[in-house]
Amino acid sequence: MSGILAALTKDHRLAVRIADSAQAFEGVTTLARFHDWFAERRRLDVARVERVALDELDRWATDPATGDIGHDTGRFFTVTGVSAEVAGAAVPAWTQPIVLQPEIGILGILAKEFGGVLHFLVQAKNEPGNPGRVEISPTVQATRSNYTRVHQGNEIPYLDYFRNVRNRRVIADVLQSEQGSWFFQKRNRNIIVETTEEVELREGFVWLTLGQIHRLLAGDTVVNAEARTVLSCLPFSGVGLAASYPSQGQEFRRSLLRSCSEEFGGLHGIGDILSWITDTRSRHEVRARRVPLRDVRLWRRTPEEIAHESGLFFRVMGVRVETGHREVARWSQPLIEPVGIGVNAFLVKQVDGVLHALVHARVQPGYLDIVELAPTVQCTPGNYTWLPAAARPPFLDDVLAAPPGSVRFASLLSEEGGRFYQARNRYMIIETDADHAADPGPDYRWLTLHQLVGLLRHSHYVNIEARSLVTCLHSLASQAS
Amino acid sequence: MSGILAALTKDHRLAVRIADSAQAFEGVTTLARFHDWFAERRRLDVARVERVALDELDRWATDPATGDIGHDTGRFFTVTGVSAEVAGAAVPAWTQPIVLQPEIGILGILAKEFGGVLHFLVQAKNEPGNPGRVEISPTVQATRSNYTRVHQGNEIPYLDYFRNVRNRRVIADVLQSEQGSWFFQKRNRNIIVETTEEVELREGFVWLTLGQIHRLLAGDTVVNAEARTVLSCLPFSGVGLAASYPSQGQEFRRSLLRSCSEEFGGLHGIGDILSWITDTRSRHEVRARRVPLRDVRLWRRTPEEIAHESGLFFRVMGVRVETGHREVARWSQPLIEPVGIGVNAFLVKQVDGVLHALVHARVQPGYLDIVELAPTVQCTPGNYTWLPAAARPPFLDDVLAAPPGSVRFASLLSEEGGRFYQARNRYMIIETDADHAADPGPDYRWLTLHQLVGLLRHSHYVNIEARSLVTCLHSLASQAS
Repeated sequence: MSGILAALTKDHRLAVRIADSAQAFEGVTTLARFHDWFAERRRLDVARVERVALDELDRWATDPATGDIGHDTGRFFTVTGVSAEVAGAAVPAWTQPIVLQPEIGILGILAKEFGGVLHFLVQAKNEPGNPGRVEISPTVQATRSNYTRVHQGNEIPYLDYFRNVRNRRVIADVLQSEQGSWFFQKRNRNIIVETTEEVELREGFVWLTLGQIHRLLAGDTVVNAEARTVLSCLPFSGVGLAASYPSQGQEFRRSLLRSCSEEFGGLHGIGDILSWITDTRSRHEVRARRVPLRDVRLWRRTPEEIAHESGLFFRVMGVRVETGHREVARWSQPLIEPVGIGVNAFLVKQVDGVLHALVHARVQPGYLDIVELAPTVQCTPGNYTWLPAAARPPFLDDVLAAPPGSVRFASLLSEEGGRFYQARNRYMIIETDADHAADPGPDYRWLTLHQLVGLLRHSHYVNIEARSLVTCLHSLASQAS
Repeated sequence: MSGILAALTKDHRLAVRIADSAQAFEGVTTLARFHDWFAERRRLDVARVERVALDELDRWATDPATGDIGHDTGRFFTVTGVSAEVAGAAVPAWTQPIVLQPEIGILGILAKEFGGVLHFLVQAKNEPGNPGRVEISPTVQATRSNYTRVHQGNEIPYLDYFRNVRNRRVIADVLQSEQGSWFFQKRNRNIIVETTEEVELREGFVWLTLGQIHRLLAGDTVVNAEARTVLSCLPFSGVGLAASYPSQGQEFRRSLLRSCSEEFGGLHGIGDILSWITDTRSRHEVRARRVPLRDVRLWRRTPEEIAHESGLFFRVMGVRVETGHREVARWSQPLIEPVGIGVNAFLVKQVDGVLHALVHARVQPGYLDIVELAPTVQCTPGNYTWLPAAARPPFLDDVLAAPPGSVRFASLLSEEGGRFYQARNRYMIIETDADHAADPGPDYRWLTLHQLVGLLRHSHYVNIEARSLVTCLHSLASQAS
């Protein structure tokens, strides 16, 4: 057993180091000093983002045969169409515009101990679509076009830590999907690397503890989507984690720490969960394929934009950007502009003192592997005025009518500002009674956090919205009682 | 720790039951009686398989626009084209015919204890392309078209055990890929279900222990590819497995049992292996997309068949089948007929007494997720007369020139006879010295068997050829010393 115990001990030690960092609200900087610095970054790192007509985007052209919108280098991304068929669904077939970007980007966070506490190097980064303009982002956030220098911009700071992991400690390293309704089969490498080397601190970067980042998550549009997805891949789960932080705080927080502790079983064993996911993938007959953008029905193109005839869902629009803080100082690009603010919410409940989250095995046209586990509710309520009544998501009323005391987390967070314009979702964690949704139907299951963290070591399991919520859940483990 | 120990104990108990079944060479039937029965099945269950021209296949037609060959129902499968681009490869771009079958089939094996020993229900099944005609196959081997009754054939025996797993014990349940060079993104549900119910034994079926199936694997073209892939997903790995079968047999077998025992570490931790797989997927720029069959270059179509201009690789040909032992008694269909016999081989070596297999992170155009782990060598040597010298696979000479004493396993096994005509590969396991290929390059790694078994719980990791070899390796654990 010595090998197994050594491995468990090593995993446990890392989990405890992560949990320790989550308990630390002051590190090499204080939150007060961070806020001064961040306000200064927002003041300095300004960009002019101007709405321009799709037909007037510099270096972007519409293919006369397909109607697809692409860059003149053929790289970055293309706005194309997708045709989706989902047998038996409330909306069994539709077409829509979608972003095609078949390259794998890097979302990397560098970690390092200071004073015995793990810190994470984050960047105050301005993206044209960000509601908060400058938001906290991973150390490196780069498309392959970026890091192979297609547009001859400046070199990307700290990139080498992630391109060259030999002799460094890799804490997490996994390809994860992006928004399945806006991106066609897009994935990024979510990677966290720990170094013991001296690291030069560049302008616009700061070392924060996990507890500090968790505090910032509670603020609207401060921590960006890329930082949230990378942090969700932290192995914040181990044997005995609950015992390492005994009986602090309220019962909710204790149940959350037990949920991170592998010795506490869940409602379902991991074998049954994997079998259930296999079953949902076998059961849902889904065809999603690219079609020319000009063949997308019910969407209208004007010189300015592409919009659904109902005015709902999203628009494809264009911006011209001028900034002094990017690899390239001026550029134009299309962006996806969602209509309305979405809701991404986990219902959670305590089962035998262990917190469980209700996940939804969800079909979206952009997934490579049919379904991924999504939040209990993931939707933009306004869209249901146009969609058939049967399409209204289960559990939406539980979320919209949740009593204030049951709302454990609520924050308005942005989606990727390099592709989406002012895209915001309200991320919520809502606690329900232990007997709520005991039999939630064939596409839903109650999972513990350590089960979610185990699935997050692999691709194709947990979608980006649920990953954000995993990070939000983790942030509640570190909340002062 | 009680939850973890309980889970480990439960996993261990299942692993021991599997290992016990692997040690049992006699069960409810003896091998001698099996061979009589099997000979009788081969005598009774005959089929007339006649080569016919592609242009004369009943109910199959060539689409005038695309050249694709499809069934008049639009179902079963389509022969179409694929265009593959692999940046930096010896052959950086090519097109080829490929089988498109976007449905998920079921490959299911039913398990049940008799006299305290796990038995597996297998079928003596005739497929038109099988070199051995009748071969041992899973309990259920059905495409979605089959089991949703598109062609109004007979009902599929035992199907309900796999479509309705509630209240049954699921031993394994995972979507796995098929041959990545002949199938475009095809996957099947590999599922093993244990029942305690009475099971009626139908004609053509037999209960065998794992040890008996392992013995049959040593014979040429007896155990079919579908049975091999399902059996590879058995969780034949647990803590303390080596200790449960102490010091029997030779050192090779002991090192193999240690390789199945999770307490023995490997050369690389599982986190490093996952990071390596992520790295290979990020590093290889691969584009594989469907193209019309008529746009496939260097392949010539005649009324009879489609063949590569070199005469190498494979042909698309047609057969007419007449049988009394199928859901439908007469049908025609296209098949892929490989040219030459392939070699699928693992190099294995003992590292600190633990057997490791050298896996290759391999790009093939049919994979959904860029690369899967393949055998050390997977090729048809004859094809390299046409391909550039740089395409010759590493380690091929180690396999072709292996001294007889180092060959631990060698058997000529078939690939799926429902899609491939007389497709055979020589499956080999070859032991090398502990210092062999210590630094095998960026696309190869030495893995233990329990690491492979761990990856096999998930999709997209281990390709079908390597899965067959995992089953062959397991068969050596049960060899009488």
